[in-house]
Amino acid sequence: MTVAIVGAGPGDPGLITVRALELVREAEILVYDRLVSLDLVAQAVGAAHIARDGLAQEVVNELLVHHGRRGRRVVRLKGGDPFVFGRGGEEVAALAAAGVSYEVVPGVSTLTAVPALAGIPLTHRDVAAQITVLTGTRARGTELDYDHLAATPGTLVIFMGLKQLASIADNLILAGRRVDEGAAVISRLSLGDQHVRVGTLGTIGRIAEGMKTPSVVIVGDVALHADGLRRLVACEQTGWAA
Amino acid sequence: MTVAIVGAGPGDPGLITVRALELVREAEILVYDRLVSLDLVAQAVGAAHIARDGLAQEVVNELLVHHGRRGRRVVRLKGGDPFVFGRGGEEVAALAAAGVSYEVVPGVSTLTAVPALAGIPLTHRDVAAQITVLTGTRARGTELDYDHLAATPGTLVIFMGLKQLASIADNLILAGRRVDEGAAVISRLSLGDQHVRVGTLGTIGRIAEGMKTPSVVIVGDVALHADGLRRLVACEQTGWAA
Repeated sequence: MTVAIVGAGPGDPGLITVRALELVREAEILVYDRLVSLDLVAQAVGAAHIARDGLAQEVVNELLVHHGRRGRRVVRLKGGDPFVFGRGGEEVAALAAAGVSYEVVPGVSTLTAVPALAGIPLTHRDVAAQITVLTGTRARGTELDYDHLAATPGTLVIFMGLKQLASIADNLILAGRRVDEGAAVISRLSLGDQHVRVGTLGTIGRIAEGMKTPSVVIVGDVALHADGLRRLVACEQTGWAA
Repeated sequence: MTVAIVGAGPGDPGLITVRALELVREAEILVYDRLVSLDLVAQAVGAAHIARDGLAQEVVNELLVHHGRRGRRVVRLKGGDPFVFGRGGEEVAALAAAGVSYEVVPGVSTLTAVPALAGIPLTHRDVAAQITVLTGTRARGTELDYDHLAATPGTLVIFMGLKQLASIADNLILAGRRVDEGAAVISRLSLGDQHVRVGTLGTIGRIAEGMKTPSVVIVGDVALHADGLRRLVACEQTGWAA
């Protein structure tokens, strides 16, 4: 194994996996994302550190192939999980095409960290039995299918939806979702300056103004059924609907 | 913090988080699921080990509250992630109601481990930009909404769907999904005897006969776009459609 595509988890360095940390510590070349904790980067004591920020995806692919071909122990450390709307698939495809051996180590994704760290369950008995995960920003500017999303049961989890949140919420209401349905935004989950704001589909656009990326938007009444879990976290409860 | 609700990851002991392993090692009482690796259970050297298998959920809740009230360091170690269709929420609610302090540590969920460990991406450029996660077995025997699911774009990920797979696949086809759409079943992901079988919606019911639980069913052409990733894993490719 020369190249490892590794999920670092949502931000807190304690949420990296044991296997991933072992690979980071043994790395000769570490290519890391902007959102990866510097505490984790510092664990790669014997490695050349390459920040991915500012590099085109093609350049990252080339770096991995180049050093992988030379048999170096390369670790590509990505925020969250490499494949849940990450671009781990493209890096793996480049390595496979070049005949470089690799390993993929899954991480704790932002998606699964939402209940534990933001206090919002994604499913809840009698409230939601299905989770739909999508991105608010689509390739080539295609629109979301609001009619279908309005009729989709359960919880919607929207990555990269903060900028267009007011428009997304309006369109969901126009297409038929309840104006008083629960909604929440989690800003910078697990990154030290995390904020959670809860409201309704009718209020969330205004409530979330000024929040920072990266974000996760939750649409669904699970946002209103989180009392037990919410005691865990310090939340900004501006606009709490109940 | 007295009680920790901890995700153990999908099975491979290297896929537990650093924080979770630390809590396991310091535990005085360890309550663990059947699917948790015995290598992890063995890390709790100073703890009383309680297998959850065979205990009713109410009994588990009572155990956690009982020992938590006495200030013991209790770790509830759950397969995968505690909240992605786990019942972590019920345990947290019981602790909160009893006024026992707790911590939740998210884990690598089976969902996010599918791409890395089974070689099937859940999203893929030009193929799927949305993931819908549901269970094949519903509370109170309610039926899935096949008309809606047939029109749902992107990938369907179905937990606990193996037993009714033939019926689920037939109903999805009858409701309008393509008979030649990709489909896959992953049996016992990351548990040492993992198997992956790939086919189409038309063939998957037959192809998956005899596979063991726990399972994850994937419906979507991502199952047919996994060449790069698939080199990672030893797969039973019976019925591979391409």
